[in-house]
Amino acid sequence: MDLQKEILEMAKKAKAAAKGLRQVGREKKDLALKTMAELLWDEREGLLKENQKDVENAKRQGLSAPMIGRLTLTEKTIKSMVDGILEVVSLPDPVGEITGMWKRPNGLLVGRMRIPLGVIGFVYESRPNVTVDAASLCLKSGNAVILKGGSEAILSNLAIQKLISKALEKSGIPKDAIQVVPTTEREAVNTLLQLDEYIDLIIPRGGEGLIRFVVENSKIPVLKHYKGVCHVYVDEFAELSIATEICMNAKVQRPEVCNAMETMLVHEKVANSFLPEMIKRFREKGVEIRGCERTRQIVTDVIPAREEDWPEEYLDLILAVKVVKDMEEALEHIEKYGSNHTDAIVTQDHARAMRFLEAVDSSVVLVNASTRFNDGYQLGLGAEIGISTTKLHAFGPMGLKELTTTKFVVFGDGQIRQ
Amino acid sequence: MDLQKEILEMAKKAKAAAKGLRQVGREKKDLALKTMAELLWDEREGLLKENQKDVENAKRQGLSAPMIGRLTLTEKTIKSMVDGILEVVSLPDPVGEITGMWKRPNGLLVGRMRIPLGVIGFVYESRPNVTVDAASLCLKSGNAVILKGGSEAILSNLAIQKLISKALEKSGIPKDAIQVVPTTEREAVNTLLQLDEYIDLIIPRGGEGLIRFVVENSKIPVLKHYKGVCHVYVDEFAELSIATEICMNAKVQRPEVCNAMETMLVHEKVANSFLPEMIKRFREKGVEIRGCERTRQIVTDVIPAREEDWPEEYLDLILAVKVVKDMEEALEHIEKYGSNHTDAIVTQDHARAMRFLEAVDSSVVLVNASTRFNDGYQLGLGAEIGISTTKLHAFGPMGLKELTTTKFVVFGDGQIRQ
Repeated sequence: MDLQKEILEMAKKAKAAAKGLRQVGREKKDLALKTMAELLWDEREGLLKENQKDVENAKRQGLSAPMIGRLTLTEKTIKSMVDGILEVVSLPDPVGEITGMWKRPNGLLVGRMRIPLGVIGFVYESRPNVTVDAASLCLKSGNAVILKGGSEAILSNLAIQKLISKALEKSGIPKDAIQVVPTTEREAVNTLLQLDEYIDLIIPRGGEGLIRFVVENSKIPVLKHYKGVCHVYVDEFAELSIATEICMNAKVQRPEVCNAMETMLVHEKVANSFLPEMIKRFREKGVEIRGCERTRQIVTDVIPAREEDWPEEYLDLILAVKVVKDMEEALEHIEKYGSNHTDAIVTQDHARAMRFLEAVDSSVVLVNASTRFNDGYQLGLGAEIGISTTKLHAFGPMGLKELTTTKFVVFGDGQIRQ
Repeated sequence: MDLQKEILEMAKKAKAAAKGLRQVGREKKDLALKTMAELLWDEREGLLKENQKDVENAKRQGLSAPMIGRLTLTEKTIKSMVDGILEVVSLPDPVGEITGMWKRPNGLLVGRMRIPLGVIGFVYESRPNVTVDAASLCLKSGNAVILKGGSEAILSNLAIQKLISKALEKSGIPKDAIQVVPTTEREAVNTLLQLDEYIDLIIPRGGEGLIRFVVENSKIPVLKHYKGVCHVYVDEFAELSIATEICMNAKVQRPEVCNAMETMLVHEKVANSFLPEMIKRFREKGVEIRGCERTRQIVTDVIPAREEDWPEEYLDLILAVKVVKDMEEALEHIEKYGSNHTDAIVTQDHARAMRFLEAVDSSVVLVNASTRFNDGYQLGLGAEIGISTTKLHAFGPMGLKELTTTKFVVFGDGQIRQ
């Protein structure tokens, strides 16, 4: 009961802060961000100490090594957090931009002005650097934010919050603009998700379980993706050396992330020349191959893929491989098993490239490039707060603009409606 | 149980149709729209007959005269439905538009391509012409739509559905792209709102009761506005003749709609010169005035406004009037009691105009123009399917573009991520 009251208070304060924040200019916001960066660096020792306690708790609780890895801060990771903030400082302020303006026959001048959304609820797991990323993107876009990180990172997050509050106060921005939920109880998330009167948008980031929990319990709109079942389709007209590099990069550069390739589709006309060498190279990198019947005719010692493999997001060094009789079969496969996340074609044929771009219903569709480019920074948005496979509002990586909306502004000189 | 199954079947068919529809070009969609228009006109007698049955049922059930008015079709209203469709034909196809394209340092060419949302659920009341409006906007923007109109219009809507299906079939578009829920049971809406696997967006249009019901029961994102508590603020530096025309237009031209003015705010420095004549003119048009204490000091026979008047959407010839000591008080009033819908300032002062535009958090903010201009057609969007005061995805009138989203398209020549 007290927890509910506390969360409600936070939400009310966030809404009040958002009202002030939406009218704060770039200069002040950038000053606050720079101060945040300075404080993070100058007071890193205190932060590292709190983080160490989190890490020790995590070890006592027997968390997995990769989880502890993601939780652990070092001077180097703090430096990269600082660089991330300075990157956001360098980005233009989206707020106040007029995205278009036109004149009506009656002389009315009508435009669209970019404005913040209001209050964002950000629910995420583990890594404390995400706290800083999300806070700086929300601040720059003029939104207040309530941050609910993973319970294992609570002390790190509260230490970061302290530094952020100091930076906000120093810069004359209400400190309630960025708040960290000061509890590890899961119930706090549930409470947060009910407060649609105060919070305009929820962005969850983490495993599929967390995200489904948020979507199923939220009264507030949610921008999210459940998973990334990303495909590379190697066309009959692919340059095979390019296909090899792209498929290798898409699978092994960071197999644990959502934009890594999970299924490779290969046109039957190139399967014989492409697959043996490609699979050999994958195996050299430790990738387990699960292939369709035709794949196994070409490389006989491949493990057979089952129906469950096609929609699977392995997030690991495992790859499903299917030989298709033509591009249409590839498109159908992606439509049926894909997750509207990221899909690529490798081809030298213009018509095939254009058909693939149009037909595939995913947030990022690429020609002759790795799926790993589905990322706000890589695509030129400057930074990202997450990736959405919800089509509403934002589809794909979400940067500063995706944390805003537009209102209509109308300049008249006495027009009335006839 | 059967009803639930039937609605589920409709949703599945809509999703299948959407998949085909998103790849249909403008020519075919425009042909289908023109055929719809022709059929509506050529077969109007059959439609008028079905509508007559609806009207008789409504009379038997004792529906109010305005409701029966909205339900009744005539040759003239059918003609305007036809004109509405032809207007949509003349609008550019939003689908496939590249809204921007840029080059990355590594040579990747990155762009955003406009695509349909998928399947829209449209839930509305009474007027059968809305069936045609919504169907044509969804079709042109490449979305499948499931239409659930008011139970009193069921026979008219089914008659319209028949003509639409014929037009779609003639044009080679899957007829499931536009479906009318063939039942008057309210339970059908509830069932529809659960089908988030098949339906991408719900747009409700009607009274606040219907909209709250939809929002509270929907698992699918909803774009809507509850109400329009629209303000005109007459500034100290207003040209009073302009203020008079704008306020009169905003209140009396169509008092029953959401963009009509409900509260007039007047700067105290012009209250004495402005209010007596303005209130006299309002009263000549039958407007009841409910004023604050200071208004009543100036025009003594004004009814006192109570606290409940300020957030009230009268939708009638009633107006709340408040004298404010400065623009900041006006801004605070709008922040507290407004509905983020439409607000206007009348002033000759540039700084005041710009401050008002920036500070007011509404979907349409106007300087020296009537609130009645919050309308897709009036603002130059071509047509509208509704007005959103939800900031996510669309804020303000929603035209064809608001029924779409964008995906990223990326052209490479072998780029991989470093």
